[in-house]
Amino acid sequence: MSDPQPPALLSHRPPDDSRALLRRALDLGLDFTSGELRDGLVLRHVTPRELIDRFAEPIPIAGTGDEQLLKSLAEIASWSISQADPRYLAFPDTGDSIAALAADIVATFLNQNLIAFDRSAPAASVIEAQLITWLRELIGYPVTPLTDYQGLAGLGGMWTSGGNMSNHIAIAAALTHTYPEVREHGLRAVPEQPVILLASGVEHFSYLAAAQALGLGSDGLLWAAATADFTSDPASVARLLASPPPGKRIFMVVGVAGNCRTTGIDDLQQLADLCEQFGVWFHVDACHGGSLLFSEKLKGQLAGIERADSVALDPHKGLFVSYPSSYALFRDPNALGRFARYPDRADDPDCLDLGLITPFYGSRGFESLKLWALMKHQGTDGIGRLVDDRHATYQQMVDLLERTGCFRMLGTSDFYRCAFVFLPDEVAHAVEEAYSRPELREAVRTLVSRYTATFADRLYRSGTVVFDLFALQDLADRIGLGTDAKYQVMGMCVGHPHIPDDIEHGIEQAIHDHAQELTATMLTDARALLTTAAPPDGAAAADVTGPAGW
Amino acid sequence: MSDPQPPALLSHRPPDDSRALLRRALDLGLDFTSGELRDGLVLRHVTPRELIDRFAEPIPIAGTGDEQLLKSLAEIASWSISQADPRYLAFPDTGDSIAALAADIVATFLNQNLIAFDRSAPAASVIEAQLITWLRELIGYPVTPLTDYQGLAGLGGMWTSGGNMSNHIAIAAALTHTYPEVREHGLRAVPEQPVILLASGVEHFSYLAAAQALGLGSDGLLWAAATADFTSDPASVARLLASPPPGKRIFMVVGVAGNCRTTGIDDLQQLADLCEQFGVWFHVDACHGGSLLFSEKLKGQLAGIERADSVALDPHKGLFVSYPSSYALFRDPNALGRFARYPDRADDPDCLDLGLITPFYGSRGFESLKLWALMKHQGTDGIGRLVDDRHATYQQMVDLLERTGCFRMLGTSDFYRCAFVFLPDEVAHAVEEAYSRPELREAVRTLVSRYTATFADRLYRSGTVVFDLFALQDLADRIGLGTDAKYQVMGMCVGHPHIPDDIEHGIEQAIHDHAQELTATMLTDARALLTTAAPPDGAAAADVTGPAGW
Repeated sequence: MSDPQPPALLSHRPPDDSRALLRRALDLGLDFTSGELRDGLVLRHVTPRELIDRFAEPIPIAGTGDEQLLKSLAEIASWSISQADPRYLAFPDTGDSIAALAADIVATFLNQNLIAFDRSAPAASVIEAQLITWLRELIGYPVTPLTDYQGLAGLGGMWTSGGNMSNHIAIAAALTHTYPEVREHGLRAVPEQPVILLASGVEHFSYLAAAQALGLGSDGLLWAAATADFTSDPASVARLLASPPPGKRIFMVVGVAGNCRTTGIDDLQQLADLCEQFGVWFHVDACHGGSLLFSEKLKGQLAGIERADSVALDPHKGLFVSYPSSYALFRDPNALGRFARYPDRADDPDCLDLGLITPFYGSRGFESLKLWALMKHQGTDGIGRLVDDRHATYQQMVDLLERTGCFRMLGTSDFYRCAFVFLPDEVAHAVEEAYSRPELREAVRTLVSRYTATFADRLYRSGTVVFDLFALQDLADRIGLGTDAKYQVMGMCVGHPHIPDDIEHGIEQAIHDHAQELTATMLTDARALLTTAAPPDGAAAADVTGPAGW
Repeated sequence: MSDPQPPALLSHRPPDDSRALLRRALDLGLDFTSGELRDGLVLRHVTPRELIDRFAEPIPIAGTGDEQLLKSLAEIASWSISQADPRYLAFPDTGDSIAALAADIVATFLNQNLIAFDRSAPAASVIEAQLITWLRELIGYPVTPLTDYQGLAGLGGMWTSGGNMSNHIAIAAALTHTYPEVREHGLRAVPEQPVILLASGVEHFSYLAAAQALGLGSDGLLWAAATADFTSDPASVARLLASPPPGKRIFMVVGVAGNCRTTGIDDLQQLADLCEQFGVWFHVDACHGGSLLFSEKLKGQLAGIERADSVALDPHKGLFVSYPSSYALFRDPNALGRFARYPDRADDPDCLDLGLITPFYGSRGFESLKLWALMKHQGTDGIGRLVDDRHATYQQMVDLLERTGCFRMLGTSDFYRCAFVFLPDEVAHAVEEAYSRPELREAVRTLVSRYTATFADRLYRSGTVVFDLFALQDLADRIGLGTDAKYQVMGMCVGHPHIPDDIEHGIEQAIHDHAQELTATMLTDARALLTTAAPPDGAAAADVTGPAGW
């Protein structure tokens, strides 16, 4: 064991000693990725209580030194979940681009502060500005090449810590655009209730959170209908734009380019037409769908995104870079210039102090280096191939789900995520019979939800395959109990361009094994519904939910 | 040169190949820290335009592969500024704890999503909860040990991306506490203008930004006076609490524990008394002063912080961990529970889904591992010694400034930062003579500001020593031209517990050399003031400002 209290700071230690320690940290990271630290599982299942008992300790007074630190880090890693494991199919933010990993390691040492250029982050500010320009170009926004940089007022985008914040900032920009007086006098000066129009059932939770945090309140949301494909219904949006409720003014319409449950993509052209017609800010939440911008083959699904006033992109979702990596981009390059504390500096071609136009952020690090590095390393062509390959792999995995005969899909998504319930072919007949009796419908819903949750939980606890688990309305009535029926559903999201055959077979086998255990009892329960007056008890809610439930 | 388009993802590459590449990234980081990549300078000075010309390029279509990526990363590093270099004295967020660096490397590979425990971040959620508990204990808040965890409603703190956001969240919590109706009906439902009371001249820019972003508007700030020591004046705060302007209600008082210009620390006890008396939320912004909590010797300066309703801590400032690392903590452990979308889950002892109580954040990474690792590695004792040693080094560096005879201090800070103007002893007599003639006062202020800015700029551009540069009011009238006089001032902030003798001598020599160049012309200009009717032209503003100006 080494000295129990070695020097704390890099500069106070022998360089070789530091290098050796940091290399061991790197190796530890690689051993996590390879699965060695997780017994070859996606995760070793454990409850919060068990982990609290394992890790809780009084505040450390004395230090433990190098060896114990590495041991603790390995222990933490061994109780972590690998989103980069191809068997993790819940919500895989894989973060496994080698270029992004290398960049992130370098960025840790650089520790640049992107609040300003001088005395702070010279090269980093330029790289981030360059990246924002590239992202604007991918969206199809008007772009001034960085070589013609004329000041922050022409930049039109910013890094944020996540999609949640990108949406917050888009809302703040839309509010400032619609009600310039708010920055001085606040929302109390606004004569009507400003509202955001978005479709119910496909929305992300961040809009409610933002409405509450930004002073609009939940009254600041106005709900349109969703289509059976889990997209915003343009007809419903049109009706509400034409006649909003009295006392309310719609200042933003949200288009969803890949919702977080089924990745349904809105008809952005139709929504853009409507927003243009009614003069309302159009925001596109492309946190999931944004990766399609890199694919020549698939980007057509996002047609119209270039007409959005603001776009939220989330490269830490679906683009192989680690947290935090999100961007809020604006068609009007000066949308963020309105937030500048010193407005004249936003027009200065010699000023590249990003902190002037980044609401909510002051000192912050060089997170943009990751995505910049990935784009340099692979080019848009290379990234496009990754996205195309993932798309093919996703279709292949949907085929796998179908051929198990265990599931019924709640929608047909043609992007990287789908939702389904556990309803094996062997049980389907009994369930359909029960469907036909109106008094049993509630019990059937509960039964399907309960077994779906149980199936997903058992797989999850085994650590071999991880699907997502959340609640979803059956908008297309695929189960047959009406469009208002809500189920616990499983979600599958494919994060990898390739899943090796042996892993794919392992996933199929695990599904079969766990399905077999449950099918007989589910059939018994379904038949019991038909023969007993009282439907069986049992809450439909799962103990363990998944990220998409957020 | 390697294959121009090697596999993008870690899992698609030969493990040894990946390890080799990532080790080179690590070595590159260490070469940046050592100074090798910066020609041994703190920075190699360059303008935004020069760097744009160097880095701007069209969006990459084809990838460049491994070798070119590493070359680019080295190039970026070579044009970055080292905040960890002991000659960087502007605003050093050093980020050079070896434990934090190791943890950050591991965390990049783990890429845990702290939105939830299950299917997301099991160990990471426990570690973050543990760290929040430790931070509460350091502040002196009531603490439930993690072993007695009873649910999120008892946690009382959250990670944030920076001090700016920690302050935003504290304000949001105070608003929700004071006006529970805001979450549903928004600020328009509030009958009076809610205002935040804070002292002018010592405030951080984030309060104005937050007031604007959260819907209060700049009208939502009410300004108290500052003392000559650059702290909030309790008498002024008391007067405004006793009789706020008509139509306004003070819902929060901000206490500053280390302002960003002189690190003056407010009398927190007096402010706490006042807030208690008037029933107003007390927020302490300890983004700078928070590190003193680790020092038995110095933490008395923060007495009363434990009475604050909310505290903002910023470990990426002053605590040797890299960005992003900030925390918002609350005396009432359930202050964040009010933000939960599913309030009943906040009381569930089996739920550790942090995303339920983190407004503004959804998916986010394992940033807490860094500070946790530092605390484990060094213990509070070890960190306390670092803070104490830095304090001693700071005093030593103030002595250095004094003995050069080049500067006049604008305040006496006993913490790690001070502000001063360039006013060499040789020039002082001529300047004092000019002071005595009222018609020359404006010209004298301009002269002092101009030479201070020029001196700071020249040093900065040389890359040998970096001081901060910003505007400051001479509240104690140290220059002698009145308390309303505002100057361009230099700032010195010491980020290191130890500065080796040779480096200290080098700093002193660089000051002497640059001062010598300027002193003669400054003396000529000062004498010219006395002999010419028209004071010399020349804007006082510097081309290049520093982070504290933020």
